[in-house]
Amino acid sequence: MEPRVSLITLGVEDLRRSLSFYRDGLGWPTDGIVGEEFENGAVVFFELRKGLKLALWPRTSLAAVAHVSATGTASFELAHNVRSKAEVDEVIALARAAGANVTSPPADQAWGGYSAHFQDPDGHLWEIAWNPDPRFVID
Amino acid sequence: MEPRVSLITLGVEDLRRSLSFYRDGLGWPTDGIVGEEFENGAVVFFELRKGLKLALWPRTSLAAVAHVSATGTASFELAHNVRSKAEVDEVIALARAAGANVTSPPADQAWGGYSAHFQDPDGHLWEIAWNPDPRFVID
Repeated sequence: MEPRVSLITLGVEDLRRSLSFYRDGLGWPTDGIVGEEFENGAVVFFELRKGLKLALWPRTSLAAVAHVSATGTASFELAHNVRSKAEVDEVIALARAAGANVTSPPADQAWGGYSAHFQDPDGHLWEIAWNPDPRFVID
Repeated sequence: MEPRVSLITLGVEDLRRSLSFYRDGLGWPTDGIVGEEFENGAVVFFELRKGLKLALWPRTSLAAVAHVSATGTASFELAHNVRSKAEVDEVIALARAAGANVTSPPADQAWGGYSAHFQDPDGHLWEIAWNPDPRFVID
């Protein structure tokens, strides 16, 4: 597994409040809320640099998609994007062998990708994802 | 404030257990535990790319340095590095004006830098830091 973080997601209580804090308060450029056409899809992205984004996502969506409780561990997740569906399966097998708790097994997702989630020994959430969208570049 | 994350820190219960999970289990290269000569300094770094690191840090250290409770919000923090001490002060003033809870005011740190912490509307921790160490490059 390559040491790579593709997306840092902060789980939030109120997406509009958080959008206002980061966009209007801190001055970070963003297209605002996108993805509302998907279930649990409403999200705000900030481009940090090529291949790294910060996302604001409702805590309830994060919990539902990662199959974890909406309290506690749903406060954030790190995404590790890979180049193929097969690589998602490989990384999840590696993480499982390393003792990770796989909370959602690899599966096709409504947004067009293929992904799975695991928790590290402290419950920190990782999403391992193949995303066909060219905006999610892997260096 | 530029949209930049310099360091992603995961607060952990047992640094050696987490080191083993990421280094031995997932195969991520690292120099192992460093910084043990400083109070709350013991930490593990993984180089993700130029200007971005992942850190494993005891939750108790994170809580002590950020001036937050060792439960809850001490599970992770994002660091935003800047180019000068004055810029730390500016970003903290901006965050405060945006409604952030400043948990530790800007101050010189034992590791040679100058930093402060705030929480966003959901309690997510940000460290704003000037770090004179050339390994902490800002693009």
